[in-house]
Amino acid sequence: MAKSNRNTGPEARLPKGFQDTSADDLRSVSRMLATIREVYERYGFEPLETPAIEYTDALGKFLPDQDRPNAGVFSFQDEDEQWMSLRYDLTAPLARYVAEGLKEQKLALPFRRYAVGPVWRNEKPGPGRFRQFMQFDADTVGTDNIAADAEICMLAADALEALGFRRGEYVVKVSNRKLLDGLKDAVPELASASPEQWLIALRALDKLDRLKRAGVKELLGSGRRDESGDYTEGAGLSDSTIATLLDFVSPITTAPGSVVMTVEPARITLSGQPTTMSAGSLDSASFAKVRDIRSAFPEHTFYQEALNELQQMIGLWSSSGYDGRIVFDPTVVRGLEYYTGPVFEAEITIPVVNEDGQTVRFGSVGGGGRYDGLVERFLGTKVPATGFSIGVSRLQAALTALGRSGVQEGSGPVVVLVMEKDRIADYQKMTQSLRAAGIRAEMYLGTAGMKAQMKYADKRGAPCVVIQGGDERNSPDGPMVQIKDLVEGAKAAATIKDSKEWREGRPAQVSVPEADLVAAVRDLLARHKA
Amino acid sequence: MAKSNRNTGPEARLPKGFQDTSADDLRSVSRMLATIREVYERYGFEPLETPAIEYTDALGKFLPDQDRPNAGVFSFQDEDEQWMSLRYDLTAPLARYVAEGLKEQKLALPFRRYAVGPVWRNEKPGPGRFRQFMQFDADTVGTDNIAADAEICMLAADALEALGFRRGEYVVKVSNRKLLDGLKDAVPELASASPEQWLIALRALDKLDRLKRAGVKELLGSGRRDESGDYTEGAGLSDSTIATLLDFVSPITTAPGSVVMTVEPARITLSGQPTTMSAGSLDSASFAKVRDIRSAFPEHTFYQEALNELQQMIGLWSSSGYDGRIVFDPTVVRGLEYYTGPVFEAEITIPVVNEDGQTVRFGSVGGGGRYDGLVERFLGTKVPATGFSIGVSRLQAALTALGRSGVQEGSGPVVVLVMEKDRIADYQKMTQSLRAAGIRAEMYLGTAGMKAQMKYADKRGAPCVVIQGGDERNSPDGPMVQIKDLVEGAKAAATIKDSKEWREGRPAQVSVPEADLVAAVRDLLARHKA
Repeated sequence: MAKSNRNTGPEARLPKGFQDTSADDLRSVSRMLATIREVYERYGFEPLETPAIEYTDALGKFLPDQDRPNAGVFSFQDEDEQWMSLRYDLTAPLARYVAEGLKEQKLALPFRRYAVGPVWRNEKPGPGRFRQFMQFDADTVGTDNIAADAEICMLAADALEALGFRRGEYVVKVSNRKLLDGLKDAVPELASASPEQWLIALRALDKLDRLKRAGVKELLGSGRRDESGDYTEGAGLSDSTIATLLDFVSPITTAPGSVVMTVEPARITLSGQPTTMSAGSLDSASFAKVRDIRSAFPEHTFYQEALNELQQMIGLWSSSGYDGRIVFDPTVVRGLEYYTGPVFEAEITIPVVNEDGQTVRFGSVGGGGRYDGLVERFLGTKVPATGFSIGVSRLQAALTALGRSGVQEGSGPVVVLVMEKDRIADYQKMTQSLRAAGIRAEMYLGTAGMKAQMKYADKRGAPCVVIQGGDERNSPDGPMVQIKDLVEGAKAAATIKDSKEWREGRPAQVSVPEADLVAAVRDLLARHKA
Repeated sequence: MAKSNRNTGPEARLPKGFQDTSADDLRSVSRMLATIREVYERYGFEPLETPAIEYTDALGKFLPDQDRPNAGVFSFQDEDEQWMSLRYDLTAPLARYVAEGLKEQKLALPFRRYAVGPVWRNEKPGPGRFRQFMQFDADTVGTDNIAADAEICMLAADALEALGFRRGEYVVKVSNRKLLDGLKDAVPELASASPEQWLIALRALDKLDRLKRAGVKELLGSGRRDESGDYTEGAGLSDSTIATLLDFVSPITTAPGSVVMTVEPARITLSGQPTTMSAGSLDSASFAKVRDIRSAFPEHTFYQEALNELQQMIGLWSSSGYDGRIVFDPTVVRGLEYYTGPVFEAEITIPVVNEDGQTVRFGSVGGGGRYDGLVERFLGTKVPATGFSIGVSRLQAALTALGRSGVQEGSGPVVVLVMEKDRIADYQKMTQSLRAAGIRAEMYLGTAGMKAQMKYADKRGAPCVVIQGGDERNSPDGPMVQIKDLVEGAKAAATIKDSKEWREGRPAQVSVPEADLVAAVRDLLARHKA
């Protein structure tokens, strides 16, 4: 289909950072979403859908990439000059929904809701980084009960198992933002840091997986220039404070028999008493970790409170049998400003080989945490909330990498060939009779001859083709159809040597009366399945 | 939740013309989409998802409301100054996808694809008119075979039947844009009209349902001012040409025993020989209609060609048994400029009462047609295509109005009450055991007492609540739980007179050993179902 000279129209292309999704990927995503939905419903969550567009002021500015134009969101003005934006996550719209519902006294709390849909980020696209992607969220609004956080973590674990991840192939890692806030309070240079400085530090710590210790060190210090030349301002902290922070969030070693981690091994040195911990191994270790970290700032009330909350959560997931599936891990930070308590991250721990040929854990497929201040922005009243968001493409990539995406081969439609062009009404009728019997079928709609039609059927993954030419139609036994089995045919072709033997043997081809078409195709499909 | 004085935050509200979708609506939409998807798959269509954002020039300008700012789309500039827009339908992105696929030689034709998702129109919102709504499309690209059009109409009919609409409750109406083009050619004043004038005329004719004969007459003539005061320019045609056009597209009378139509009865007078037709009655009438309309311009080749195409389509759907479900109806125009051949509209014919108290047909739930020029815009090469789009909210509204949306009562979660606040780990464990058994359940997460918790469970539509206080826990027979059946309880409460009788009888309440919790709840749910 060459481009003609007379074409002066637009070029067919997508904007940078956007992508089309193919049939196989869509089928696998759709199966995945249905499984997650089933688990979320079982936990008592209700579906909610909010529109893609919100007022910019209602969404707020909580994105990590605020240094980009438009603060990372796509924005435009309405006719009355008010600014609107495409949602950058599903949490900000939820806060708007809840605030509106409470104001109008239409919403009862606590409110458990799930939502799935695309979100948009006006960010620099890169490999695996898109400007539109899908999230699947579950949130509980209107309770500060720590059981709500523990439940969300169990929900995440159950969803991953329902998708086919086995014990030990995933882990839900939990920490508490208050723990870092307590640390900030306890370390003099951090206590006197500005909110902006602290936010830069939090976002830097959250990037440990990707940038490693050296990169994060630059971001905590004077700043960092990435490979593309873009410069990110640093938090400007002193070397000793940077070391304290890095040691605190890096207490992971490679678990015995486990995989190479994306962060370097480190030890907790804050307490003076080094303690080695493993986040990948089966737990009950969580309790021990809390005990160990307690000794870092034994006199500091806020810090100790954060550890108490963690201990409560561990008690809840332990008593329900989630030990080892959910673990306390202080490396969990989360880059969003609005978290106020427990923070979570779901990680697939199965080893995969990355672009550099290294064997690493697959990594994070979702995360979340408690955000008690988001609804308050609207109402001035505290409405505590907690939630978890699955990155749908990441999770789907993990399932595909493991060969568990559930996409089946040979699920194409039966193709009814057009042998005589003036008889398409008859071929259409055969096609409709197959469809009416619940069989996936199509009549060939192009203009090509028999050979090209067979090629088309192959390309479509057709299990068989249906053929009726003059010979079949005028058969002395009444109208017949040939059914050619493409799956068996391909196998037979591999063993038969010459085309004469092929023509005579007619492997995998049957002739049946037209009236038996549906039954014969149904038999063939059943044989393929068996 | 009163607004505190100290709040200076944003107001929680949605932009005009956008809406949140509730749990019941989402569940019913999701069931509906799954049914449609099943039918489309059976017809051999493959799913495709394109992003919400495209380059503005790639989308083109085909919206009826071009007189509005931004030509009816939401647009914004990328960092490299290129204009991007939110898609206003799923057809323009498909054309971009196909052109790109052909250019890169990655796509085989004919290509059948379906797509479902939101589209955005920057239009004036009104009752039932939103700026974001969902479409479900099926298109066949790369064939000018009229069988592709006939097939799409059969697909629409089958999808409606799969959703529960019975024969006679719906109709797929078909006409051909070339018929109107032929008419344009044959009537001198129309033949000399400018493309803009003709487009205004087509869009006016498409509004016959809503604006009636009088409103359309204004739009075909000097122009029209609507109730809100907005003015739309007219096509500026003469009274006699206007009469010819209106007579041509209004050949419908009320079918015997049928419902009041939204368009006024009229008769075909073009041929000089009046012919009354009914679009609602069972067909085979379609052939007769074509024959009658033939006589309007017997000498005019282009006009007669259009009728031949229609006759071919009628032959195809007739031979597959779709007579009466699909009918030829010249009132079908479609407001989009890009249609080049057959045009379709799916209508629910069930009578409903409108805002003015009149009994009318429910009306259109989808439409489409052949558009052979859309891909050509990019490639300069003709790539013929045809498709159909379902308006998801309209269709869902029809199902809901008929009580066929499939939403069930009492499908809320089992609520485990919190009787002793220091024992939430135990209640959480019970909740998890129910969930692990596949039962929808939640632990109460608020801070309220027993009475308010019961009220919450009622509001959630809980089938039962699970109660374990100190008495049950310390029972001499070992730990017990009370299961209170809220469905049976509500029935019993209606017959029991005083609260003493209530307390003594304890209707619909059973006490079982804690170990039997799951089995007892399962029994209760089974009883409710029976």
